[in-house]
Amino acid sequence: MATERLVVVGGDAAGMSAASQARRLKGPAELEITAFERGHFTSYSACGIPYWIGGQVPGRDDLIARTPEEHRARDIDLRMRTEVVELDLAAGRVRTRDLDSGSEAWTGYDKLVLATGARPVRPRLPGIAAHGVHGVQTLDDGQRLMASLELTEGSERAGGRRAVVVGAGYIGVEMAEALVARGYEVTVLHRGPQPMATLDPDMGALVHTAMNRMGIRTVSGAEVTKILTDDQGAVRSVATAAGDEYPADVVVLGIGVEPRTALAREAGLPLGESGGILTDLSMRVRGHENIWSGGDCVEVLDLVAGRMRHIPLGTHANKHGQVIGSGVGGGYATFPGVVGTAVSKVCDLEIARTGLREKDALAAGLRFVKATITSTTTAGYYPTAAEMTVKMLAELRTGRLLGVQIVGGAGSAKRVDIAAVALTAGMTVDQVVSLDLGYAPPFSPVWDPVLVAARKTVAALRAAG
Amino acid sequence: MATERLVVVGGDAAGMSAASQARRLKGPAELEITAFERGHFTSYSACGIPYWIGGQVPGRDDLIARTPEEHRARDIDLRMRTEVVELDLAAGRVRTRDLDSGSEAWTGYDKLVLATGARPVRPRLPGIAAHGVHGVQTLDDGQRLMASLELTEGSERAGGRRAVVVGAGYIGVEMAEALVARGYEVTVLHRGPQPMATLDPDMGALVHTAMNRMGIRTVSGAEVTKILTDDQGAVRSVATAAGDEYPADVVVLGIGVEPRTALAREAGLPLGESGGILTDLSMRVRGHENIWSGGDCVEVLDLVAGRMRHIPLGTHANKHGQVIGSGVGGGYATFPGVVGTAVSKVCDLEIARTGLREKDALAAGLRFVKATITSTTTAGYYPTAAEMTVKMLAELRTGRLLGVQIVGGAGSAKRVDIAAVALTAGMTVDQVVSLDLGYAPPFSPVWDPVLVAARKTVAALRAAG
Repeated sequence: MATERLVVVGGDAAGMSAASQARRLKGPAELEITAFERGHFTSYSACGIPYWIGGQVPGRDDLIARTPEEHRARDIDLRMRTEVVELDLAAGRVRTRDLDSGSEAWTGYDKLVLATGARPVRPRLPGIAAHGVHGVQTLDDGQRLMASLELTEGSERAGGRRAVVVGAGYIGVEMAEALVARGYEVTVLHRGPQPMATLDPDMGALVHTAMNRMGIRTVSGAEVTKILTDDQGAVRSVATAAGDEYPADVVVLGIGVEPRTALAREAGLPLGESGGILTDLSMRVRGHENIWSGGDCVEVLDLVAGRMRHIPLGTHANKHGQVIGSGVGGGYATFPGVVGTAVSKVCDLEIARTGLREKDALAAGLRFVKATITSTTTAGYYPTAAEMTVKMLAELRTGRLLGVQIVGGAGSAKRVDIAAVALTAGMTVDQVVSLDLGYAPPFSPVWDPVLVAARKTVAALRAAG
Repeated sequence: MATERLVVVGGDAAGMSAASQARRLKGPAELEITAFERGHFTSYSACGIPYWIGGQVPGRDDLIARTPEEHRARDIDLRMRTEVVELDLAAGRVRTRDLDSGSEAWTGYDKLVLATGARPVRPRLPGIAAHGVHGVQTLDDGQRLMASLELTEGSERAGGRRAVVVGAGYIGVEMAEALVARGYEVTVLHRGPQPMATLDPDMGALVHTAMNRMGIRTVSGAEVTKILTDDQGAVRSVATAAGDEYPADVVVLGIGVEPRTALAREAGLPLGESGGILTDLSMRVRGHENIWSGGDCVEVLDLVAGRMRHIPLGTHANKHGQVIGSGVGGGYATFPGVVGTAVSKVCDLEIARTGLREKDALAAGLRFVKATITSTTTAGYYPTAAEMTVKMLAELRTGRLLGVQIVGGAGSAKRVDIAAVALTAGMTVDQVVSLDLGYAPPFSPVWDPVLVAARKTVAALRAAG
């Protein structure tokens, strides 16, 4: 039997999970695996960067699940600092460039995995390339930010250090907390009416209050127009359309990411509405028998909205890699889609969502009822009881659960999993009311807050007729 | 329209939830509600007693959700310390006895709710009625135990106070922790090979280790034969079949409860295999149009095992009450059954189960595969990461999830809800692997431990063919 050649483009979660799983299923005699990674790191947790920056995680290397050497020990020929610059699908080969030496080469493949990830959106603003302006998408990004912070903190300037975070999504909010932890005065500039636009504004308002309470300044409706620099080219302040100027020693861009798919686009691979690569359920690129793709560069099926979406998240990337590796290795696995679950934390406040927000439901053409309740994370009399607010949406008539948003104290966020499973199963809110959830005073009131929300949503359904 | 008369027997969770829900749906002109409670308290959290005894909850009254006065303010004629001693179904009336005066009376009803609860199993042992031997099923029980502890603690005896807990189920383990918190030397005597027989022994062993680590002595295979008393009739020690004697200032019985159904049995109402009252899905007593029953005195349908079981738990009792009250009030609601979810806590160890243990699956005639994994509650690098062990059972061939058991640090127990919802939906473990659960470093590794267990269970299924 001839040895097959697998080429993996991108050495983080999806790519290296795929390579590892393929290797588990096929030894080096059957399958030769070559992986190319443009950065300095493999298989790391980008989601962990805010906790490293904030000091909860002691070292950068704690975020690395598997080093290049560990991958090589498993017979994966991993080339670091090597960028794939062209896909030649007709000839079955990729052109690579060594980022240190600049030398280029072609590598042939029988099977190809594209795991090129995402990149932070960098609006074309004057000054956006200044020293001190950072994305935090890759560990290389994190490394540069950390160096920049240490430089600033080591300098002689009197007075407090100031940071401006642009964007108030998960990464923006987590980075704001990290910078507060490092002693910065932090201002978060965001476009919407409330931070955390991944929630409806009424729920985002709860996050807003909590951020202000921990000393983070938030500016809503802020459109950044310019980054002002000093004569050394280092960031000095951030200007907005309203004419305000926010002084900054460091600027973190937390305005989201977009799929990194230039290679795929140039090769003519199918891309979706949001620019992500389109695959089938086995993560095979649509119309291409021997090419797979997964992680932050693909679109995934949103099972609740009924459409493809770009949802960059490490947990999905790891699952994609597993599915791809199974397929490459001759096994069978699929990634059926997502329901849009996400959890986050700002200080002692936990934030979670799954399924559709009001605007998602409207965009999907769904009519719905909603209910919001506030209860406690544990029995009200238990000493660790904290407030927990749950908002729930259900489809009019059918009563099908459409989405849940949660904001509350410790123990709130992972409750969203109840709704994530119920959404996957297509349960109605009547069915949710009857769920047999874990109850004991240290863990829940006798009616879990998710059930209380479901009861109120059922009542809203009845009222809507 | 004539005023209907509703009589409720039992004033705790199920009975008073039913009364309250019925009152919400029908005013006093339509429905007259009379409730009888033999004890001193209504609508309290019996599950909270260990935390009151242990001092985490400051006062007894914190456990009371609604006082008799609050119920009366809602036009519920609540008679405390009044025991129903006979049901006359033919005439539609109940005979009551005032426990203070001894006087008796008949009260007629059009609709009847039986919510008589459960009572601790009290084995017929010499000395079982001694001073200092306590159950902890009702708040009256808790009150007596508290008085007994305060008496002992206030006495002049030198040396440490010693407590013996008989039984190592949820209540036994929680009471052991509570007594340790009060400064007692605690010995737990239990019959099985491991404490927490609500788990398989391999998972119970983890609880065992944790209990010993916190200084609780556990004696497995211990059959209590006698309670020895001093000449005042107060407990002195507990003797076992092995001939050992364990000195005790106080003894707590945590050997489970049984449905309190003497009234129902005498009236000829249908009882199940474990002695609980049998109802239909709307909690109406089978064969009786105008009688409902719920809470710790009924059997419920175990949706996974496919049979009726007695599962006394406050969360079910509250749901039953809601369903009964809706039915009584002319609405429509059902209680479809349970999947056997339970959570508990011993010190910093969280314990959870749902669905079937190995022996339950065997008893149900099911063949299964199993897998156990150990992971962490959060990303491994996050500072609050704690070990978490998950055991999963799936049906052979079909791959249907059958049960999950969890033992681990903070954040472990409520993850059982994921499995509870999946069991309710009849998911296979393959479906569980693909669930879109909340991921962020403070809340979960990139693969949630429940998903890791599902992956291993899927592998076990494949291996079993």
